[in-house]
Amino acid sequence: MPKHYDRVMEIYREISDLYAALALMGWDQETYMPPKGAASRGRQLATLSGMAHERITSDEMRGALDGARSESLTADEEVNVREISRFSDRAVKIPVGLVKDLAETSSAAIGVWIKARQEDDFPAFAPWVDKLVALQREVAEAVGYEDEPYDALLDEYEPYASTKETAAVFDSIRGPLVDLVQRIADSGVKPRTDFLERNYPVDDQRRMGVMAAERMGFDFEAGRLDISPHPFCTHMGVNDVRMTTRYSETLPMQSFYGVIHEAGHGLYEQGHDPENEGTPRGASVSLGIHESQSRMWENMVGRSRAFWQHFFPEFSAIFPENSADVSEEEVYAAVNEVKPSLIRVEADEITYNLHILLRFEIERGLFTDEYAAGDLSAVWNENMKAFLGIEPPDDRDGVLQDIHWSHGSFGYFPTYTLGNLYAAQFYRAAEREIPDLSERIARGELLPLRDWLRDRIHRPGMTYRAGELVQHVTGEVLSADYFLAYVHDKYSSLYSL
Amino acid sequence: MPKHYDRVMEIYREISDLYAALALMGWDQETYMPPKGAASRGRQLATLSGMAHERITSDEMRGALDGARSESLTADEEVNVREISRFSDRAVKIPVGLVKDLAETSSAAIGVWIKARQEDDFPAFAPWVDKLVALQREVAEAVGYEDEPYDALLDEYEPYASTKETAAVFDSIRGPLVDLVQRIADSGVKPRTDFLERNYPVDDQRRMGVMAAERMGFDFEAGRLDISPHPFCTHMGVNDVRMTTRYSETLPMQSFYGVIHEAGHGLYEQGHDPENEGTPRGASVSLGIHESQSRMWENMVGRSRAFWQHFFPEFSAIFPENSADVSEEEVYAAVNEVKPSLIRVEADEITYNLHILLRFEIERGLFTDEYAAGDLSAVWNENMKAFLGIEPPDDRDGVLQDIHWSHGSFGYFPTYTLGNLYAAQFYRAAEREIPDLSERIARGELLPLRDWLRDRIHRPGMTYRAGELVQHVTGEVLSADYFLAYVHDKYSSLYSL
Repeated sequence: MPKHYDRVMEIYREISDLYAALALMGWDQETYMPPKGAASRGRQLATLSGMAHERITSDEMRGALDGARSESLTADEEVNVREISRFSDRAVKIPVGLVKDLAETSSAAIGVWIKARQEDDFPAFAPWVDKLVALQREVAEAVGYEDEPYDALLDEYEPYASTKETAAVFDSIRGPLVDLVQRIADSGVKPRTDFLERNYPVDDQRRMGVMAAERMGFDFEAGRLDISPHPFCTHMGVNDVRMTTRYSETLPMQSFYGVIHEAGHGLYEQGHDPENEGTPRGASVSLGIHESQSRMWENMVGRSRAFWQHFFPEFSAIFPENSADVSEEEVYAAVNEVKPSLIRVEADEITYNLHILLRFEIERGLFTDEYAAGDLSAVWNENMKAFLGIEPPDDRDGVLQDIHWSHGSFGYFPTYTLGNLYAAQFYRAAEREIPDLSERIARGELLPLRDWLRDRIHRPGMTYRAGELVQHVTGEVLSADYFLAYVHDKYSSLYSL
Repeated sequence: MPKHYDRVMEIYREISDLYAALALMGWDQETYMPPKGAASRGRQLATLSGMAHERITSDEMRGALDGARSESLTADEEVNVREISRFSDRAVKIPVGLVKDLAETSSAAIGVWIKARQEDDFPAFAPWVDKLVALQREVAEAVGYEDEPYDALLDEYEPYASTKETAAVFDSIRGPLVDLVQRIADSGVKPRTDFLERNYPVDDQRRMGVMAAERMGFDFEAGRLDISPHPFCTHMGVNDVRMTTRYSETLPMQSFYGVIHEAGHGLYEQGHDPENEGTPRGASVSLGIHESQSRMWENMVGRSRAFWQHFFPEFSAIFPENSADVSEEEVYAAVNEVKPSLIRVEADEITYNLHILLRFEIERGLFTDEYAAGDLSAVWNENMKAFLGIEPPDDRDGVLQDIHWSHGSFGYFPTYTLGNLYAAQFYRAAEREIPDLSERIARGELLPLRDWLRDRIHRPGMTYRAGELVQHVTGEVLSADYFLAYVHDKYSSLYSL
């Protein structure tokens, strides 16, 4: 009888219920909360987070974990003990005072960032980056790391990943992607995009997004789609998964691909084993694996020729006037337009990764002392030139564009590109294992892929670490080759390279 | 330095933040939660409620309260210690096993009640009423009471009220109200109501409700109006107050008065002292006082002739076709139609109280052993005949109509009529103290009343117990005379008595 294990899970379920409440409070804050409710909500979030922290670091939890480690456990139970120990160790190692300093500093830094961005005044924000880097360095020292402090930060978002290995994979895509972007620019091919600038009523955009999400198998009886300024997906359980999008009448593809992206995240959360809800065994592996799900659906499926074979008639039916003079092939080309641009969140699926590589190198450099915050504007602009061939006219659309650093989040950005790489490798395995995958997508049959993902990736939860999962599902360690082959094939054809 | 007091408040603020999270979870459950989320939400609610219970009953809280009682405190601090002690004492006295039994029994009873109501089968539900009465009797014995067990139950909703005094006040209105209803029936006057059965589009109903709530001074930057099957008002803080309503295209006055009613509750919550948010000093006194706010706005203001002098043109502007053949006086008469009916929630402001008196007498009788659950159908139908002159054709629209007893809630019903009585007495004081109150309402100026209520009733929070508040605001103890005078004056004129 694994008694200590039972106690661990009893406490952890309380933590998980607190996290569900926190998720709801966070969702509400972005969707329905009346504006004046912000101050109290902030305090309430802090109180409940504190309660979760208290439990995960409590003597009782530590003792139960110690005990559980010498009990005879099933494989699933071992997963839970491994991961809860990891959460608990990390929480115990970071001094409470440091957590508070970080929260207070980042809370102030967000305000400074907003103003600095408005006023295009990076020097006003730079000292706050230095402060937050210094605090995160303390975190890294407290948590410990193998090679360099950045390992400890990356670990928060992509557990068990190493900076060195991540850098090696990223290094292997930089050249090929810069080269590919250049060749696309030189091709002279310019997809027609005028029809995407017409007026697309929001209600119809919503209908189209919901239809796609339903076709993907997202269960709206166990989830929702709402509106928020910054789209996200969150969950309060396997049967309560909530995504958001934003609508602009002249940017129909923003919300369409936004919904497909978030529904990709949502399917992962709806796909966990209900028996293990609220435990690591029933939770997602890492941000990178999460992003592999959203990116695969958004880009590899949603931006594929097969997808538009089926969806073009649906698109035409919902927007008959806007699509009257447009062909399926033109839509396919338009949603795959590659164009170096200043803003990460507006980038296409190739250049997006160059935006990430730039940030990863800067973040890593901040923690190896290669850079101080004061250098960042210059480094940013140089690298934009080197990677994308364009230079920001100001810091507002350059080094000041993302909120992440003002949150003190360093180590988050790389998970986006890891997601793209995982996605391509997973998708190749899916193509091998699902007969006629592309033909089925062309018939609007998206469930075979959903079911394969559920079986291979969603149901196992945290059974495998990210690297192990890639090996388990694809038979190989992570390699950038699949992503490079995917973009090479797709864009050679699109841009007649 | 009141150190123990500070510790009490530190713990209490955590409890209050948990309650805010619970309020949000409850609100979400009724408004936006996807249907399959119900099971996990139930568990999450139980977990967080348990955490609040743990804190209010903890040795640390008990010790701090003991210490605080011998510290030198301000008047406000004394209010907090008095009320937190009351919550804590009650929570400590009720054994955890009994709380669990009650939760489990009522959870099962709700299902039985739903089925029994569908099948018009009171005998199937009766044993569950007996079980819940037996458990609540244990609660009463554990909590203690002065005269009879029902005191201890009433105390949960209407703190410091006594059954005997409540019965005495209720006794003083039964005869006069039965008589008034009879005289109205005999008057032969029948207001025209055909125009209320026309089609009123939901969007326009919403506009009219929001307009009324805004005119009352409800701050939509610090609150919301959503849709739910059972309307309610809840709050996560003084700046986050959420009400709901329901719409039927052929029942425009249901949502209109529903919104005014909930906005009356909402103004109370928005009117608390922000400095004391999350403490008893910044919280409402009792359900009866809360109901006095909603009922005053709904009935004394919203169903007054003065109100319709201003609102009739607004109503006509929003519904020009439906109101084309209708006069201001006809609307005023229609919204004040008095007609004995079977269902409490559909009753007018006079007969409503007879529904409550009937329930109060039954509840009290269940706890004095005058009645067993098996008797209730017969008792119900007899009293409906005696009080309202009508007899339910079945139990579905009789003894089975309310959900309260299946929740194990005994002692809740009387707060509705207490609310009506408080409201009339408060309103008379407002008329004395606000110059030209009725003329100002007729000009659409509702803020003077809101401000008076805020000043006299909302801001003091729990400074006064309900009975003390009535004395403080009106100069007298609670008396039914004001309510009887109000309905006598209003309905004598409406029905030419």
